[in-house]
Amino acid sequence: MSTIAPSRDVKRAFNFNAGPAALPLWVLDRIREELHDYRGTGMSVMEMSHRSPEFEAINQGAEQNLRKLLAIPEEYAVIFVQGGGSMQFSMVPMNLALPGKPVDVLHTGAWTAKALGELKKGVLHHIAASTESEKFVRVPRAAEIHRSPDPSYTYLCTNNTIEGTQYHEIPESAAPLVADMSSDIASRPMEVSRFGLIFAGAQKNLGPSGVTVVIVRKDLAERADKNLPTVLQYRTHIKEKSLYHTPPTFAVYILGLVTEWMEREGGLTGIQKRNEAKAKLLYDTIDASHGFYRCPVEKSSRSLMNVVYRIAAGDEALEKEFAKGAAAAKLVGTPGHRSVGGMRISLYNAVELEALEALVGYMREFQRTRG
Amino acid sequence: MSTIAPSRDVKRAFNFNAGPAALPLWVLDRIREELHDYRGTGMSVMEMSHRSPEFEAINQGAEQNLRKLLAIPEEYAVIFVQGGGSMQFSMVPMNLALPGKPVDVLHTGAWTAKALGELKKGVLHHIAASTESEKFVRVPRAAEIHRSPDPSYTYLCTNNTIEGTQYHEIPESAAPLVADMSSDIASRPMEVSRFGLIFAGAQKNLGPSGVTVVIVRKDLAERADKNLPTVLQYRTHIKEKSLYHTPPTFAVYILGLVTEWMEREGGLTGIQKRNEAKAKLLYDTIDASHGFYRCPVEKSSRSLMNVVYRIAAGDEALEKEFAKGAAAAKLVGTPGHRSVGGMRISLYNAVELEALEALVGYMREFQRTRG
Repeated sequence: MSTIAPSRDVKRAFNFNAGPAALPLWVLDRIREELHDYRGTGMSVMEMSHRSPEFEAINQGAEQNLRKLLAIPEEYAVIFVQGGGSMQFSMVPMNLALPGKPVDVLHTGAWTAKALGELKKGVLHHIAASTESEKFVRVPRAAEIHRSPDPSYTYLCTNNTIEGTQYHEIPESAAPLVADMSSDIASRPMEVSRFGLIFAGAQKNLGPSGVTVVIVRKDLAERADKNLPTVLQYRTHIKEKSLYHTPPTFAVYILGLVTEWMEREGGLTGIQKRNEAKAKLLYDTIDASHGFYRCPVEKSSRSLMNVVYRIAAGDEALEKEFAKGAAAAKLVGTPGHRSVGGMRISLYNAVELEALEALVGYMREFQRTRG
Repeated sequence: MSTIAPSRDVKRAFNFNAGPAALPLWVLDRIREELHDYRGTGMSVMEMSHRSPEFEAINQGAEQNLRKLLAIPEEYAVIFVQGGGSMQFSMVPMNLALPGKPVDVLHTGAWTAKALGELKKGVLHHIAASTESEKFVRVPRAAEIHRSPDPSYTYLCTNNTIEGTQYHEIPESAAPLVADMSSDIASRPMEVSRFGLIFAGAQKNLGPSGVTVVIVRKDLAERADKNLPTVLQYRTHIKEKSLYHTPPTFAVYILGLVTEWMEREGGLTGIQKRNEAKAKLLYDTIDASHGFYRCPVEKSSRSLMNVVYRIAAGDEALEKEFAKGAAAAKLVGTPGHRSVGGMRISLYNAVELEALEALVGYMREFQRTRG
């Protein structure tokens, strides 16, 4: 047996990256312990056949963890695929759009714009709501959604990483609801049965990049034309339990560890409490700054995952200084998305309250000296 | 700084898996050293933004290593995508098939059959050669290839993992040659300029599963209809240097380490020597066994990567016993593919000669006691 030095010796950063993002230290420790020899096999998980009983158990374990954590009903399949959200922007309409029935889209920012971009390549669609005229500072209200009479499905992005908005109530929908949940999956309890399909890249709340979780009502997966590329049909991966072709084995293994860690943290109820405490501390700090820090997002739409704010009414030089000083203090990933500027703090599941405390300490000190 | 115990303490298996497969110990050691803190960043590579300068350097480094190692000419792009060979079976014709011009296929086994399966969904194609009538015990001879007058491209699989065959001379082709090189890329020096496109899942010779290398002549990537899904166009990934969307960052990092290790081993010339020595030892053992072990593959087509053989003319009970005893001796991955049975030993780059010596020792002992 190899002995592993305690990882606490390492000076770890406070990591506010928007994704790929912080992982729980407990998970990194486990990865390191098992890296050369996964439980007596004499191999790394990376070196195992995806057809071996050991990897099949890892694959099944990751699925079972997710099923338990999100309370996923039996009539839903859980599959692990490749290609991230960007692949899903095409794969969803390929599989779920029905001839003559439009896709209803709730347009809330950069990520729904990407999904729309793919629909515009020949899929009948309808923008059922949009907050673009308000620069996406909120998600649409129920009364603002103008549905098609008989859509193939309704599409939304539950959390908008760039704009810092999040639905705190999921809109009603008679048609199957398809959700890009990449940046808030498993961050709070949710009712899976309200959705027809949920997809999420793992790299924010569930693990490393390279694996995408799709939760899909099995009957919907049967809509797809069997002439589609085999690897782009959900039914292929459902039938083969995510082992149709070589999966990203190490990423699936880590997803299994991250979901195990979440169970230890009290499941989604525990995770939600952590996340609310972190977000509250940060929004309170912003709101108490007398306008030195200002969050442009309407309060009812504020994201618990990505907090965006400007400094001194958008003083770019000061914002740069803030980010530079933060990085020097090992507060990593504070600048906003290059398309919007300002600051953005991502508070995914693995970010500890301790990191937030360090950040708000830095924010107060920055305001005291520069405000 | 964390101190890492030497990994030699661990009892590592002799790993003959067909993919995912053995990784160099030097690479695993590096991964472990840097897992909690990549070069003073205080983060794992998995936790870094793919837009960070650190990851951009990793991404660029991996590409540069491959370019140097394979001597890839300037007019070729090197991109990292997701979805493995199975995605390429569809992505290649989507991007490269021209209207009215068939795809010529050299059919040599299970993997070209999969590629053909996707072509049969509406892409004009022509089987220019096939060794199916001989149960794929060899690749076609030059004179057996009957080309279309003006094909979109000619498709082949340079090494057939299941059948244990490999081209030792790449066929001439006036049309662009597209090669599935998943299981022998970077195992020997090769002339990239003979090909229009080369693809390979990393999980055999280049790293872990979850990242696919595509080497494509840039002008060919311009054949694609711009209405294809953005993420399925080669040109998207060429333009964005594999950063169009979140890449499988950790897999790319490991690919960078594996290619660095290959340079240290003397580049492809050194790697080829290692591979030839390993294959020679195993084939010699088989050929010297007086028929107890028998390789069904024609000598001129024998693979240096995957050696298949039967025991005692295909005695399945004895083959099971062989595999069981091997596993007990930490010789992992000896059974053949479930579709063909028998034994299969994969000798990818990271498999050490020491592992082969242990295997042939076991084979001789097995023959002595059971032969």
